[in-house]
Amino acid sequence: MPQKNKNEDGLKRTINDVEITDPLVLECGETLTKHEIIYETYGELNESRSNAVLICHALSGNHHAAGLNEDGVSGWWDNYIGPGKPIDTNLFHVISITNIGSCFGSTGPATINTATGKFWGASFPALEVSDWVKSQKMLMDVLKIKTWLAVIGGSLGGMQAMEWSVLYPDCVKSSVIIAASLKLSAQNIAFNEIARRSIQSDENFNNGDYLNLGLTPSKGLALARMVGHITYLSDDILGEKFGRSLKNSDSNDEKKRNIEFQISSYLNYQGDKFTKHFDANSYILITKMLDMFNFEGNSTQNNQVFKTSKCKFLVISFSSDWRFSPECSEKIVQHLIDEKKNVTYLRIQSNKGHDSFLLPNERYENGLSLFLTQTLAENTDFLA
Amino acid sequence: MPQKNKNEDGLKRTINDVEITDPLVLECGETLTKHEIIYETYGELNESRSNAVLICHALSGNHHAAGLNEDGVSGWWDNYIGPGKPIDTNLFHVISITNIGSCFGSTGPATINTATGKFWGASFPALEVSDWVKSQKMLMDVLKIKTWLAVIGGSLGGMQAMEWSVLYPDCVKSSVIIAASLKLSAQNIAFNEIARRSIQSDENFNNGDYLNLGLTPSKGLALARMVGHITYLSDDILGEKFGRSLKNSDSNDEKKRNIEFQISSYLNYQGDKFTKHFDANSYILITKMLDMFNFEGNSTQNNQVFKTSKCKFLVISFSSDWRFSPECSEKIVQHLIDEKKNVTYLRIQSNKGHDSFLLPNERYENGLSLFLTQTLAENTDFLA
Repeated sequence: MPQKNKNEDGLKRTINDVEITDPLVLECGETLTKHEIIYETYGELNESRSNAVLICHALSGNHHAAGLNEDGVSGWWDNYIGPGKPIDTNLFHVISITNIGSCFGSTGPATINTATGKFWGASFPALEVSDWVKSQKMLMDVLKIKTWLAVIGGSLGGMQAMEWSVLYPDCVKSSVIIAASLKLSAQNIAFNEIARRSIQSDENFNNGDYLNLGLTPSKGLALARMVGHITYLSDDILGEKFGRSLKNSDSNDEKKRNIEFQISSYLNYQGDKFTKHFDANSYILITKMLDMFNFEGNSTQNNQVFKTSKCKFLVISFSSDWRFSPECSEKIVQHLIDEKKNVTYLRIQSNKGHDSFLLPNERYENGLSLFLTQTLAENTDFLA
Repeated sequence: MPQKNKNEDGLKRTINDVEITDPLVLECGETLTKHEIIYETYGELNESRSNAVLICHALSGNHHAAGLNEDGVSGWWDNYIGPGKPIDTNLFHVISITNIGSCFGSTGPATINTATGKFWGASFPALEVSDWVKSQKMLMDVLKIKTWLAVIGGSLGGMQAMEWSVLYPDCVKSSVIIAASLKLSAQNIAFNEIARRSIQSDENFNNGDYLNLGLTPSKGLALARMVGHITYLSDDILGEKFGRSLKNSDSNDEKKRNIEFQISSYLNYQGDKFTKHFDANSYILITKMLDMFNFEGNSTQNNQVFKTSKCKFLVISFSSDWRFSPECSEKIVQHLIDEKKNVTYLRIQSNKGHDSFLLPNERYENGLSLFLTQTLAENTDFLA
């Protein structure tokens, strides 16, 4: 039974838990005979079941995208989802899930493998982005939704939005690909490799079987997050927020041993905070999904990577994003243009780096809002 | 007694060890009552002792800058120092030292504190760039050299070249500042902080007292180096060298668990290799020196940070360097212009990132060579 919450701004939010009992054959060759998915919904599904929007989360996201949860914590995309917001819950029925392999209740390394009675840990199968999309499609079928008005995601979420457009072309009216890339660069992979090695170097890691021993590789996971975190922020915004300011220390401290810059203190805080809610095996698994993602690897003929897609596309990039730079988004756009797809591209001026996709920005909000309301209008006319 | 080596290309190389018995009062307030410096020389000192050039090393450098050492290992700047090379040992007497605080024989955390009979470890005093320059000046006095024809350094080495120009203006004819910065950005500091935390998280670190226990925090140090290493290379060169190529693995590996990208393998190799010759406490100490360096903090009046300097300057940057970008070098140049100093600026086109300063590049070689031979000519005329 879904729990219902009503947030102060009138957001209708439910939190749900469903067991998918059909087997999911994964890209790696293994099969999940059944799996559990936790998801939230915001806003109401219309009678024609035509206003559903799927939100795809990124590396560290989860089902709680909007409103306040039971602990009073805001969703990770609360700036964008809600009544009157760009993804307007007065118009759309928004579904946000925790994907399998992550660690917020859906089946993953931090859940119990019923076949063994133990935590999956590192024995959880390797996943690819298409496995997430297939699992999301199974949920879609359970919910008896035939089409998504939009599949929307930033970063790794954008990669899912791409995959949806080609894997299930008849189920997607529009795909919104934000701050994403066709594939990771060697530098992207390098940062992920350091993150994984940080975790694997932790004396509590125990080859990934730490949960069954009551251990957590917190030091390694904190480091991994710190490495990732730098890549989400621009040099500019770090300079603007922290510069070379010192934290709580007397700059005349004779020995200058204890001087700590605010940026160091901030990063350490972010790293430590992350270990309280994220699982290290999930971090390894999902960074590997990112590394392995290669949308150009889908190329059929004439380099047509979006060949099967039928939907319209909105691609968005941010000027100061150096994790997935505007050039990455522009390669996606170029493919779409070359393949004669319906694409709108927004390059947003922002000094906030990759994190821009989560943060308020008027032009981004207006562009996303306009695209979605137009898509709704187009499809309402079509159905009328 | 210096050992003499003669390399195959005719490089005259000596390796030397000197004990400085005058006390060195450090910026932190502590005093080294005596200290040892290891250095190499290349080429011969002329009769007027006017052709000496000081090479200042960066974070992980040492005294072995040119030629082959006893183990047949090339010096870290062998591309640039030698007979007929840009820093031409047929013309110059080149001195390259290991600075105190590092770990190649000069006094530092990995040497014995004679007062206690134990390794200094983390009890070695905090250092600043000006302490290195003062220690180098003490060596200069021992060697009875009155002026450096040039003080040359890349990265942290360039910071020493800056300090020399203002701390001992009468001892420096020219200062060559390569791929350096007036101060680190918040992003630079963030990467250093992660490196330090990697080391400090290692279960063998033992608050820095590992050597006295026969331990080494290799896992943490390897990670620290991996983090640093990414920042030395451009995204472009990583893409060109490694791209998304896989290492030794069958891309059809059913479980896709063991797939490793070449970039990952390369970084892991670099990290592990580094732990065989570098000391973790030195890494912490020297990254803190970098963080603390703030040449604008020397500002006297009217923002004149080079006020006391009398020498000429050559500033060099590399287009793809994102650790110390051309903009960092251009801020140095702007200060020099505003303060009416004699400055030449070379912005070198290169796709090799911060590491460009170590690598062959015709325009860089020619520019450096021309600047140094001109400086020699100017000063030879003056003495004649």
